[in-house]
Amino acid sequence: MFYGIKCIFHSSSFLQFVLPLQYTISPVIATMFQRALRLRKALRRLNLHTAVSSSATIKHPPVGFNRQFLPTTSWLSGACCRKLHAGTDGPNPSPAAAPDRLPFSRITSEDLAFFREILPGRAITDPDLLESSNVDWLKTVRGSGELLLRPQTTEEVSQILRYCNSQNLAVNPQGGNTGLVGGSVPVYDEIILSTALMNKILTFDGISGILTCQAGCVLESLSLYLDDRDFIMPLDLGAKGSCHIGGNVATNAGGLRLLRYGSLHGTVLGLEVVLADGRALDCLATLRKDNTGYDLKQLFIGSEGTLGVITAVSILCPRKPKSVNVVFLGCETFEQLLKTFQLCRGMLGEILSAYEFLDSECMRLLNTHLKLPNPISDCPFYVVIETSGSDATHDGEKLHNFLDEAMTSSLVTDGTVATEDSKIKALWSMRERVTEALTHDGFTYKYDISLPLERLYQLVTDMREHLGDRAKSVVGYGHVGDGNLHLNITSPARDPALLAAIEPFVYEWTASCQGSISAEHGLGLKKRNYIYYSKPSQAVALMSNIKTMLDPKGILNPYKTLPDNII
Amino acid sequence: MFYGIKCIFHSSSFLQFVLPLQYTISPVIATMFQRALRLRKALRRLNLHTAVSSSATIKHPPVGFNRQFLPTTSWLSGACCRKLHAGTDGPNPSPAAAPDRLPFSRITSEDLAFFREILPGRAITDPDLLESSNVDWLKTVRGSGELLLRPQTTEEVSQILRYCNSQNLAVNPQGGNTGLVGGSVPVYDEIILSTALMNKILTFDGISGILTCQAGCVLESLSLYLDDRDFIMPLDLGAKGSCHIGGNVATNAGGLRLLRYGSLHGTVLGLEVVLADGRALDCLATLRKDNTGYDLKQLFIGSEGTLGVITAVSILCPRKPKSVNVVFLGCETFEQLLKTFQLCRGMLGEILSAYEFLDSECMRLLNTHLKLPNPISDCPFYVVIETSGSDATHDGEKLHNFLDEAMTSSLVTDGTVATEDSKIKALWSMRERVTEALTHDGFTYKYDISLPLERLYQLVTDMREHLGDRAKSVVGYGHVGDGNLHLNITSPARDPALLAAIEPFVYEWTASCQGSISAEHGLGLKKRNYIYYSKPSQAVALMSNIKTMLDPKGILNPYKTLPDNII
Repeated sequence: MFYGIKCIFHSSSFLQFVLPLQYTISPVIATMFQRALRLRKALRRLNLHTAVSSSATIKHPPVGFNRQFLPTTSWLSGACCRKLHAGTDGPNPSPAAAPDRLPFSRITSEDLAFFREILPGRAITDPDLLESSNVDWLKTVRGSGELLLRPQTTEEVSQILRYCNSQNLAVNPQGGNTGLVGGSVPVYDEIILSTALMNKILTFDGISGILTCQAGCVLESLSLYLDDRDFIMPLDLGAKGSCHIGGNVATNAGGLRLLRYGSLHGTVLGLEVVLADGRALDCLATLRKDNTGYDLKQLFIGSEGTLGVITAVSILCPRKPKSVNVVFLGCETFEQLLKTFQLCRGMLGEILSAYEFLDSECMRLLNTHLKLPNPISDCPFYVVIETSGSDATHDGEKLHNFLDEAMTSSLVTDGTVATEDSKIKALWSMRERVTEALTHDGFTYKYDISLPLERLYQLVTDMREHLGDRAKSVVGYGHVGDGNLHLNITSPARDPALLAAIEPFVYEWTASCQGSISAEHGLGLKKRNYIYYSKPSQAVALMSNIKTMLDPKGILNPYKTLPDNII
Repeated sequence: MFYGIKCIFHSSSFLQFVLPLQYTISPVIATMFQRALRLRKALRRLNLHTAVSSSATIKHPPVGFNRQFLPTTSWLSGACCRKLHAGTDGPNPSPAAAPDRLPFSRITSEDLAFFREILPGRAITDPDLLESSNVDWLKTVRGSGELLLRPQTTEEVSQILRYCNSQNLAVNPQGGNTGLVGGSVPVYDEIILSTALMNKILTFDGISGILTCQAGCVLESLSLYLDDRDFIMPLDLGAKGSCHIGGNVATNAGGLRLLRYGSLHGTVLGLEVVLADGRALDCLATLRKDNTGYDLKQLFIGSEGTLGVITAVSILCPRKPKSVNVVFLGCETFEQLLKTFQLCRGMLGEILSAYEFLDSECMRLLNTHLKLPNPISDCPFYVVIETSGSDATHDGEKLHNFLDEAMTSSLVTDGTVATEDSKIKALWSMRERVTEALTHDGFTYKYDISLPLERLYQLVTDMREHLGDRAKSVVGYGHVGDGNLHLNITSPARDPALLAAIEPFVYEWTASCQGSISAEHGLGLKKRNYIYYSKPSQAVALMSNIKTMLDPKGILNPYKTLPDNII
């Protein structure tokens, strides 16, 4: 060890550089040269060995996530019963609880006969087969839909909606059912309209990178299809193995690539949508530019199935990066973490593809519950940086220069670079498995918040102070690059008093700095009534007008997205 | 010269490599090495000398563009007269001609008194001062607005619209008045509501790169403001010196950076809009992610001032690239030009920022009318490629490798690399001044078309064949990277017979391959009735419903965007 620096080679595939904390570093130039020398050595290895495929960054959804949230004994059955829903925390239902059932028709034998005729073998009433479509992925919301329809074509979706609209039958459009806000399952006995069999790729243009496909294509299937053609999807999610592209668009899914490729409002080029009355709206353009009238497709991106059923999507796909690198860093303060972000935006520039963070409390849960060891020394904050580029040597050099500068400036105090696929996945899992670790810590209250970057972590600190001993753990992690904080609070068991301390505090705090109370998860059933914390009443009223215009009977995904009361 | 290759150093700042045409190139490996050697030498110079600022790519609007389009003697004055408008080509007005005036109120002295009270000194009636606001930039459309209002605040815009709505007074929102489809000037006596004095920058976050500003900020002013802070605007236009960001958003402007940074639907994060009845809609979020309800701001992006008046914008700005390079290449066929695009998307990857083209007819006009010499040898097609990156050495190497491969594969037959700011501008001008050269060739019929890439140039070829001797010149140029063709046809003078041969041929051709008849210019007055060539009747009907919902009296920018007849 020279000048207080040590460089540890854990294995052939982990290169770790460890610095003492900022205040102990000698600022002499010799030190910087030593650091640069060691880093260059590390980066030389990186350049030689890290030309990995983008598949290295595939994330898997945690298993068994939050299963304990809803006590299974509380589940009720029968279409006419009031259900137990998320947010029903005691005798006074929270704003997340379901409202009373609206006066939609109930399914008759004539209705069933109609659906069986137009969808032979694909109008399902077997309760066992319906079970998984009635419960959301978090197991926190359960509906009692008695009919599952599985159309294969847009024309079939048109027939279904035309009929439902005429008969005043409510419909719950459903993709992969991986949503986190109770938007993808029935609340009562809505007919479940699944896109599962609408899974055909329609066209792909290898010059422009524009893909068109039916709405039920699973995101991972599309990724695999494109992988063979040297392209990638512009979005990537933990739920990629199950979620449908139509559902991704309907919920305006964010995910891991938003920092680099932007939101679906920019990458989705066209949509085909069936409106509530069965009319098919063909806006399935495959053009990057089209300024002929209002961009109607935008209305449906993020509308959670309440304005129409997306039946096909056209989307602009980026070329597959030839080189992917992942770095795991430690920072002393959140301010340094933000300065490191600024530095890497400048120095990694066009190859930066992810800048994620977790705090030391997350690390404690990973250690405790999942036995995942900290790959670096203990720090208050950890950062996962991913680069994706077209030249492994250039990317390695940029990474080297950035790390050198970050260390020289004492912005980071420790770090490790993964150089093999498996180790890249291991580093990613430190970020990705926080959700899973939380489920082992107790009952979890989850918040998905957008904030101005400089306030991003203050909410965690303030919440921790605000709750004191009442919470077991208060942790923060998320997508720094997108200004998206995942704030999670655990307690040994469901605790109405704790919830009352958290809410509306968390929403008021978010609103006080013009944040969003749902960054990427949407509103669905659970968060619909919190919309006013992020949107003014004029905006919500206009949303309601749009809903009325497009779906006057309100049959599409009722009880979702819009609040119970329009002010 | 060895193996049929020559490498000419024109000057210290132009490096030209010239290859004979494809069929004369010997494919021996020695040749490839020779090429590589020469290119490496060229690129070495490039790496040393081309770290230029992004300002090198600033384009200037051509001067005097199309001034002859509208004979000034035909201009009529007086609010009650039918005006001469673009497309009025003889006794039978084309679909581009203005419809009859709608029954809006006429301005009274009481109205004037009201506006003078709320906008002291900023309610202008002097005809000399009104002149430039009544005529569009192309000088093809003239209104006869008698009142120009120059609000400074959102509240003033609210007061104006609330009053106009109550009094049934039509309003023409106006930004920099640089639009090309007659959308930004009155058709009759609409009140002109200018955003010129709403030119304040509100906030800028140097970490996230999010800028908020009033709608009347000039694009170039914003670029200069950001330049000092090491950021750039995500869009760049020829009209940047005059156009307003509010107008850019209202018309969903495309421009030169769309290939790299995507459309405004992705980069605009928030809008403040005043609706027709004066209600201010605050969706001015400064968040990258916000999934709380429908994304209302999207409705106003590209609505051309017909749904609301944009008063403030929040937009995500990229970091300023540290290195910019420009290459000018020649290709034998359009197919090779597309293959070169594919190759450079793969090899230049994340640093590719423009891929523009012009055909040999454009080059002829540049030579003939502007005396601009061809910087390379004569070819059927020319390409301008721009790279923008964070590391000049890396960018130069990528460019070197790409050019080496493009030559080895005989995709390009000639090319030159500019290494100085002035020469970069000179190469860009070969693409940018085509519009200006056209104005010297005669009366110009202009089309702005989006097409699938593989069909992009076929329209030019087919049009040339279709028109035969009737046209003087038929030229094609545009944004290959965005699938956007600018098709221009000249004749010695305005020629109704020629127009009848062009239209509806051009629109039917475009519709036959699902193209867009307005890629980036919008519909405005001139193209509103052609909307059905690119949008189905259901979509247009829905647009009309949205217009009625947001502006029931139709006071906002009447006669624009939507067709005269809703089918």
